[in-house]
This record gives sequence, structure tokens and C-alpha cells, in this order.
Amino acid sequence: MKKIRLKNKQIDYPILIGSNIYKDIGLICKKYLEKNRVFIVCDNVVYDLYKKVLQNSFKKANIECIFIAITVSEKKKNIITVASLSSKIISHGVDRKDTIVAFGGGILGDIVGFTASIILRGLNYIQIPTTLLSQVDSSVGGKTGVNNIYGKNLLGSFYQPRLVVIDTNVLKTLPRRELLAGYAEIIKYGIIKDAKFFDWLQINGKKVIDGNTNARIYAIHRSCINKSQIVEADEKEHGARALLNLGHTFGHAIESLNNYKKDIIHGEAVSIGITIAAKLSYVEGYIDKKTYYKIENHFNDIGLQISLPKNLKKITAKKFVSEMIKDKKTVNKEITLILIEKLGKAFIHKKYSHSKLLKLFKEITS
Amino acid sequence: MKKIRLKNKQIDYPILIGSNIYKDIGLICKKYLEKNRVFIVCDNVVYDLYKKVLQNSFKKANIECIFIAITVSEKKKNIITVASLSSKIISHGVDRKDTIVAFGGGILGDIVGFTASIILRGLNYIQIPTTLLSQVDSSVGGKTGVNNIYGKNLLGSFYQPRLVVIDTNVLKTLPRRELLAGYAEIIKYGIIKDAKFFDWLQINGKKVIDGNTNARIYAIHRSCINKSQIVEADEKEHGARALLNLGHTFGHAIESLNNYKKDIIHGEAVSIGITIAAKLSYVEGYIDKKTYYKIENHFNDIGLQISLPKNLKKITAKKFVSEMIKDKKTVNKEITLILIEKLGKAFIHKKYSHSKLLKLFKEITS
Repeated sequence: MKKIRLKNKQIDYPILIGSNIYKDIGLICKKYLEKNRVFIVCDNVVYDLYKKVLQNSFKKANIECIFIAITVSEKKKNIITVASLSSKIISHGVDRKDTIVAFGGGILGDIVGFTASIILRGLNYIQIPTTLLSQVDSSVGGKTGVNNIYGKNLLGSFYQPRLVVIDTNVLKTLPRRELLAGYAEIIKYGIIKDAKFFDWLQINGKKVIDGNTNARIYAIHRSCINKSQIVEADEKEHGARALLNLGHTFGHAIESLNNYKKDIIHGEAVSIGITIAAKLSYVEGYIDKKTYYKIENHFNDIGLQISLPKNLKKITAKKFVSEMIKDKKTVNKEITLILIEKLGKAFIHKKYSHSKLLKLFKEITS
Repeated sequence: MKKIRLKNKQIDYPILIGSNIYKDIGLICKKYLEKNRVFIVCDNVVYDLYKKVLQNSFKKANIECIFIAITVSEKKKNIITVASLSSKIISHGVDRKDTIVAFGGGILGDIVGFTASIILRGLNYIQIPTTLLSQVDSSVGGKTGVNNIYGKNLLGSFYQPRLVVIDTNVLKTLPRRELLAGYAEIIKYGIIKDAKFFDWLQINGKKVIDGNTNARIYAIHRSCINKSQIVEADEKEHGARALLNLGHTFGHAIESLNNYKKDIIHGEAVSIGITIAAKLSYVEGYIDKKTYYKIENHFNDIGLQISLPKNLKKITAKKFVSEMIKDKKTVNKEITLILIEKLGKAFIHKKYSHSKLLKLFKEITS
């Protein structure tokens, strides 16, 4: 089992990465609990598949476990779901020594992390991400949150888990489409700060998608190391953490304008968003043509979408720009973008010109 | 103007106390803003009384202010109110450099603080408490939160303001009943950690209630110093901060069993709760009869309620105890109480016997 320690003055917790470790999950979690009871909040999909193995493992470790299975979706990722989940947990007589376990994908982790952060002003919680996307991105770093009618993740908190446990075995039951969506966030680390990793992905990316355990562990481990370093330096996103947002300002606008329908899931929107950011970085002269195509080709090779789907091409450029203004990085209506300086280095571009964005969207919409 | 600086490794903000300072509030706040705009969320009651003076003062300081007036009550202090307030604020195009100002009493401050803590994962916010209770207690220390069907303040966050501004002048329009309710929290500081202050209150307490500005400033200042010291030592209530809960486990049960009806407001419930805690401390032999009566007499002299109102006397002792179990300090259904060791010193009594509590409630109910 590989271990990363995310540590700075305020934070200190481990990220454990292995294969086929759910059978020992009770013992793994035990030393991070304050008493022998956990509330496992899980997505209905994984609940059916893994309830038994989790239950047996916690039982073996003498830990009482209360399961709460919920159905999640980007549309249900709102404060009403947080309110009802909180009430379910509190109804069991939760106290300050209890631990909440988030067992599921990124949407579930965001909801459960936020819920854990507000019950009794903050309970101990553990992330066990079950999708590639949540394993390499959302489970690490303590960003929690839900959507609001005005935009994505507008309500939430910075709240760090006590432990993150990643089992690559769970990816065997994950649909290929979800794997690809998660892979978009893996490429992101290569582009923003780890050129060697990008090179490795060019050679080994298909193995990661196709199920090679060692390749998956390597890719997840390296992604989590990159993310940890950024979070350690800037937990609350006063600066460098914004780099992790490469492609996301575009991606969030795409998801929102598509009404969070499931024909474009988060990682797919991010994939399109990153290639738009790469294009813009090329058009602006920050990266050369070769680098731009190197990036775009890798998305293409791996099977990720790089252009807007038909239905979104009909949306006006103006609508895209006003959607992007809602981004959390926006200050005084001025859009902040993450652009690419070279492969392995991104930077924060504040006050990006609205008219340039309008021009860009006029080109890529029809 | 008096100034207290609440400071430890994580926290650093001032509490300013003065009289008739709202006319300069814009300039006072200005250096704590990240841009020249504030969202002032205020209670409808104070909105009518103070909108103009605030508006003029912020205008004079070149700060744009957006007023959001809401009606608050213990019953409306819930996550639905937080959700709708968040949406109102976000609808104005709030961004990370904006500041939220909570202008009102304790309930408003709790709601607004919590809301500020979750919008865009945390906005800058300023507390301007307008009741005696919120000036000496809830505006300082960063506890925010709302009620849930299962109990009081069960959802919330630790989230510190950037500044607290206290104007005693606002107390002139505060009903006497609210003044008395706030005074209960002032006595609390004397009992739990400041015997000299208790002595001062015995002599000067009536002046505080009757409107003597110097006495009010002194009492508020000393209360805030005591509270700051406790918060500095233990922000997240892992230990000593629980002492501030003297009388509150009883008080919250009283409020909840009374369905938060306005015939018993928070400070009144706390007043009854503190005298119950004093009685228990005497019955258990921690304080002598003289000290017990000294405490009870001061509550009596000042005009505060010290026994359960008629309608609550009909509630069974069992119901009281099961209500107390819902307290946030409860672990494994074992009740934690704050008891008094001597005047000026309280302590945390964990695992207080349920049967002793049943006996006590059988005596004080009928």
C-alpha cells in the first residue's frame, strides 16, 4: 500500500492507495476514529456492490457501522440534500466522537464532506472515493460543496478529511466512460506541473484506462502527490491552488448551460475545458503549436471529447461568457482563467478580456 | 473606543466597543474590507431604526452597501433560511472580495455568520451585534449555527469574523426584557472565571440594566475580555471553551421543550439554567450554601427568572433528561455538565449521572 502524507501547519492526514484493500478497511480506518462507530454514507450504486465486504470488515475490527445509502446526481447536489442527510445522521444520535465515511464518487464526497463539516460544527470524516475522478481529485484537499441555482459549488467549506483510502480494485466495476472522465483530471496534473508525468501518460495512459493495476496505482499516486503539494502550499486557494482549476471555468459553464444533464458528466466537461484552455494558450502565444497539438492529441488518443457537443454549439458566445462570470474566481465581474505557459507549467491569468472570450466562443460555436 | 484583540495562532481580529459610533461605521469597517462593497444583512426591526445612519456612514466612506433585511426568530433559525439568504446574496453577483455584515441580535448573527462561512467556501464578515446578549456573547468567538428538528445549533461552523463592532447606544432602543436576558450571560463570566467581576456586578449590575453608559461599556468590555481569553485558548471547544456553556445544557432543553416560543427567550432560559447548575453544584457539595445564595440572589435582585415557568413544570423529569442528552457535549449518551467549584471557577463534569438528574428534575417540576 502506498502512503502520501498531506501536511502543513494546519493539516495532517494520510492518503492510502492500494488494490483490493476494502476487506481490511475496518482495521485501516480504526486508528483514525475517536470511538468505535462510523456512519457510512454511500451512493446507492456502490451500496449494493460493496455493502457486504465493508460490513464484514468493520465488524471484524469491532466497529459499529450505520449505513445511509442515498441517490446522488449533479442536480441533487444542493443544500436541501445536505439538510436531509444531516437530519438522517443526527436522528441516529450522532455525537462529537463519531466519524462519517463518504463512500462513493465525487458528487457524493462533496455532499458528505460538506455535511460532515456542519454537523455539530464539524465531525471527523474519512473519504473512500470509488471513481477514478474522485480518487485523483475531489477526495483530496478538503474542498466540499454543493450547487446553487446560480452556479456550481457556490456553497461549501474547506474541510479536511482525517483519512483518504483509495482502492483501485473498485475501478473494475466503473463504466469506461467514468474512467475516461477521471482521466481528464489526471492529464491536468501533467499539464499544470508535471511534464514528466505527462510524458509517462502518453506512453501508459491506455494501460490506466484498460485496467492495468500497476499503471493505475502509479497514475493515482502521482496525481495525489501533485495535488497534495498544491494544497499544502495553499489550502484556501489564495493563490496557486487555482491552477487546479485548469479547464474548469469553461467546464463548469458547459455543465451549467447543459443543465447538468448526464450526456456531459463533469470530467467530460473538464476535458473539453482543458482543450479550450490549451487552444487559448496557443492563440495567445504562450505555448507553441507543437505543444498545443501534443496536448490535444493525447486527449484524442485516449478517447476523450475535445469539442463542444452539437446541442451546446447552438448557444451564443454571449451566454457562455456570462455563464463564466459566475465562476468563484471572478472578482468585480472580471474573469480569471488558468492558462498554460509550457507543458508542466500553468499560470493564473486575471482579468481576461471579455471580448477575446466572445471571439473565441464565436469560433467554437456555430 | 475600547479595543480588544482576539489573537492566537489561527485567529486575529479586533473587538471595538464604544458609544454612538454607528455614524462612523463606514470608516471603522473600511480597513477590514477587501473591496469597497458590503452586504449588510439585518433584522427587520433594526433595519427601520438604523438604515439611514448606516447608509450615510458607508456612503461617506465610499463603500457601496447592499441591504438585505430579513425577519428572524428561533423557529426560523434553520438551514432553509440559510439557503434562501445565500441565494439572495449570490443573486447580487457576490465575489470572494466581498464582505458580509451581520447587523442584529444573536439569532441574526448566528444565521449570517453561518451563511458567510459557506458562500464561496467562506467570505469575509463583520459582526455588529445590536442586543446586549449578542454583544457580550454570540458575536465574539466564531460559533455560528442554526437549529435542526432534533435540537438547537446542531448545524453550523466555527468561523471567525474579521471585526466585531459594539455600540452601546443601540441598547437604548432595546426592550428591558432583552437587556435582562443579555445580562444573564454577563453574570456567567463572573461565575465561571472572574469573581471580582461578579462582585462589581453585585454593586453595578442595576446601572448596566438602567442605561448608565460607562457601566455598560465596562460590563461589555470585561465580558468580551473573558470570552476572548477562553476562545484564544480553545477555539474549537476541545476543552475549556465548554465552560461558556454554564447553564446552557439546561437552558437549551428548556427552550426546546417550550418549542422556542417567545415567552422564554434564550437569555431567560440560560438564566434559569445557570441557577439550576448553581443549585446542583451546591447539592453536590462543590459550593457552599452562602455562595449558592449569593448567585441566586443576584439573579433575583436584577429581576431575572430563576425557576421554571408553570407550563414547563408539568413536563416529566424523564423528558427533561432525554432532551438534555441531545446536547452537543453529549458523548455515548452521557451528559456533560458545567458545574461551579467556587465563585469565579467552573469545571467540566463529564458523564453526569442520569438518575441524579432525574431526581433533580422531579424536585423542580411538580
